[in-house]
Amino acid sequence: MTDVAGLVRDRADKYVGWLTEACSIPSMATDPAGLAEMAVWVEQKLTGLGATVERLTHEDAPDALLGHLGGGSKSLLFYDHYDVQPVDPLNEWLSQPFEPEIRGGLFFARGAADNKGDLVARLAALEVYKEVYGDVPFTIKFLVEGEEETGSKNFHEIVERNADELKADGCIWEGQGIDHSGRPALVFGAKGLAYVELNHKGLNEDQHSSFAVYAPSPAWHMVEALATLRAPDGTVLIEGFYDDVEKPTAEDLKILEGFPFDEETERRRLGTDSFIGNVTGLEFLKRYFFEPTCNIAGIVTGYTVPGASKTVLPKQAMAKLDMRLVPNQDPDDIVAKLRKHLDKRGFDDITIDSFSMEHPVRSEPGFALGRAAIEAAEETFELPPAVAPMMIATGPMHVIARGLGVPTVSPAGVYRPTSDIHAPNENCSVEDYLKIIEYTVAYLDTYSRTE
Amino acid sequence: MTDVAGLVRDRADKYVGWLTEACSIPSMATDPAGLAEMAVWVEQKLTGLGATVERLTHEDAPDALLGHLGGGSKSLLFYDHYDVQPVDPLNEWLSQPFEPEIRGGLFFARGAADNKGDLVARLAALEVYKEVYGDVPFTIKFLVEGEEETGSKNFHEIVERNADELKADGCIWEGQGIDHSGRPALVFGAKGLAYVELNHKGLNEDQHSSFAVYAPSPAWHMVEALATLRAPDGTVLIEGFYDDVEKPTAEDLKILEGFPFDEETERRRLGTDSFIGNVTGLEFLKRYFFEPTCNIAGIVTGYTVPGASKTVLPKQAMAKLDMRLVPNQDPDDIVAKLRKHLDKRGFDDITIDSFSMEHPVRSEPGFALGRAAIEAAEETFELPPAVAPMMIATGPMHVIARGLGVPTVSPAGVYRPTSDIHAPNENCSVEDYLKIIEYTVAYLDTYSRTE
Repeated sequence: MTDVAGLVRDRADKYVGWLTEACSIPSMATDPAGLAEMAVWVEQKLTGLGATVERLTHEDAPDALLGHLGGGSKSLLFYDHYDVQPVDPLNEWLSQPFEPEIRGGLFFARGAADNKGDLVARLAALEVYKEVYGDVPFTIKFLVEGEEETGSKNFHEIVERNADELKADGCIWEGQGIDHSGRPALVFGAKGLAYVELNHKGLNEDQHSSFAVYAPSPAWHMVEALATLRAPDGTVLIEGFYDDVEKPTAEDLKILEGFPFDEETERRRLGTDSFIGNVTGLEFLKRYFFEPTCNIAGIVTGYTVPGASKTVLPKQAMAKLDMRLVPNQDPDDIVAKLRKHLDKRGFDDITIDSFSMEHPVRSEPGFALGRAAIEAAEETFELPPAVAPMMIATGPMHVIARGLGVPTVSPAGVYRPTSDIHAPNENCSVEDYLKIIEYTVAYLDTYSRTE
Repeated sequence: MTDVAGLVRDRADKYVGWLTEACSIPSMATDPAGLAEMAVWVEQKLTGLGATVERLTHEDAPDALLGHLGGGSKSLLFYDHYDVQPVDPLNEWLSQPFEPEIRGGLFFARGAADNKGDLVARLAALEVYKEVYGDVPFTIKFLVEGEEETGSKNFHEIVERNADELKADGCIWEGQGIDHSGRPALVFGAKGLAYVELNHKGLNEDQHSSFAVYAPSPAWHMVEALATLRAPDGTVLIEGFYDDVEKPTAEDLKILEGFPFDEETERRRLGTDSFIGNVTGLEFLKRYFFEPTCNIAGIVTGYTVPGASKTVLPKQAMAKLDMRLVPNQDPDDIVAKLRKHLDKRGFDDITIDSFSMEHPVRSEPGFALGRAAIEAAEETFELPPAVAPMMIATGPMHVIARGLGVPTVSPAGVYRPTSDIHAPNENCSVEDYLKIIEYTVAYLDTYSRTE
């Protein structure tokens, strides 16, 4: 049997070098030049691996890239993204976000875990696969988009316009990760998202705060509105919010019973004594996978310089909410319900703007690629994989899994709960990165041998 | 009778020039060089008017200035401050805050109305007075401090250390203003202040918002805490908050019945349909003068870039509250009550830092200087003055009025409800400024003739 693991180890410097190159490019939405540079980098790597690459253009979006290689009757679609989150607060990074640095076996850079680590591991795996097994005996389509972190606003249109080209027997969706205990994690769906910005301007100008004795306060008005939306245990109080939520099936609950999750390690990582609602065990897991959320992503009003005082009655207030949705909630319907809820309570003077609307979605896990991903995970990691119904995060998976009808799996990936994605000091372990290259080769090989 | 008004008009360019000089100096707490430059400017102006000037130093504060001039058995203390508020949001200014500009008869600059307009008008009035009437036949003490806008943290100590020098028969405290209808406004007291910053850090790091399904949210926790503090009608819900509030006396209510206040103009200025609690008429005035407040001066948590989405669960949240107090609330007691209120409701993990603690205070209006200020106002403005028990804003008046036992009046001043103090585009009218010079000369003269 070919020593794929040994080959990957021998090439560690080379493939860490690829990741370093990728993570040195500031491909944030706020940096169009960085996005363009990153698209070229991915394009050149794919071309170098023998793929033909097409740019799927859209008038309002960075180009998505579609690489084709291999051949044969079976087909597999990879989905990744080359854009990354913003980097603020920059002063909390211990090294520069776009100057990758390895400390204690961890590779620190914006994008290391979300999602350049998995993207580059897949490119490396293709090189290894071809060297070990020769040409890929099925069709691989490599779809890499550039606006995932800003909500994939145009991705749906890009997919719909190129539906025939993108169809496949199964889709590999980013990477789910490796859990606390080192077990490979796989999921077959994703929560949806409704991200809204609430704004209220209640006064012509900021006022000296002595006027607060009679002038309406937009800041208080916003606090009062927010306070109607969620209970301290996390229950969302927006009227009708749970109407379309599917309860977990008996089969789902069986999966959860065997699902590994180290609550104590996670509490320590977060720096908290307990989870919201004090849930634990099966109740925790039910909530984790099957409950929607209403999170405050940001609030700003008035004077915010720490340690200083300015006696102002601010004229306006803004809050950002992100709501993770579960099947079969519909993001547009949820925003309509929020509007109605606020109107009914006297908050019709608060405007709502929506961003990043994504439908939740799940695939049935029995398809060939799904089975290959599970089987190869068990072999590569030598541990029972943690297979879960849905990731708790969101991606534009619905348009592929439902829109194109391509069953979709997020296989094990470089992400760990300690990866600090969307936060300062994002990182992945170098060991994990190499392991994911090895794992990717393994499931490609397993899939090639399925009927 | 000497034409003081005519003389002031003839000198309009000169005295507007003085105000322009003063308002060109960026004497904000954040600009120590600007504060120092402004102190020198005031010192030189006072010296030029024949005063001897002493610097009242304090190890933690900008120097306060004490000018002495005149002589005789009676004495008058002026209180003003040479520091100004911060200027943010700078982009909302139509001209630069420290490059005074006159547009449509209004003089725009930070400090124009709070309180350089009154301070410089007094300096100009002294020059006019001496020219018209000769030497001042009573003692004038001119106290000008430099940290009023940051809460006069050390002013109490400065006053206590120099108590003998500062004692006087009456005190003229900044300026109250001119009301909507053009009537001169005078008050005999000030509300107090307890300004606090609330902070809560509930997570080690910012988290990807998908974790909101189980991770505690510091932002929600802060919103929940804030929501317990105030009712939408403005009633403060902190336990025991109203315990020490003095109700208005029958005499107070009589003053209020005749008190001019154009509610409709004020609503239009604010850009609102109604005041909080929908109060109007006498109920409005009772609230205005005799009710304390709990205002949100600022909140910040998480991602706050307008029109963009970042799916983050922020690790911390901050809120600033300013509470205007009325006799006999005590700011330290109020903060202790806030602490207890939060602890009792499970918010003991929210820290409280206090700034700008000021006692509320009132003087009985019958003292000679108080009567002179009222009488001269009626003569100068040819309208019945609007005399009120307290200003709704705050200054460190307590240490003078109670600490030194010097009865205190805030006479008519350049401030109008449209002056946008503590906000962008602060302004005073050039006409008002000249009128206040004239008025100041008038009450100095009236006071000189009292027994």
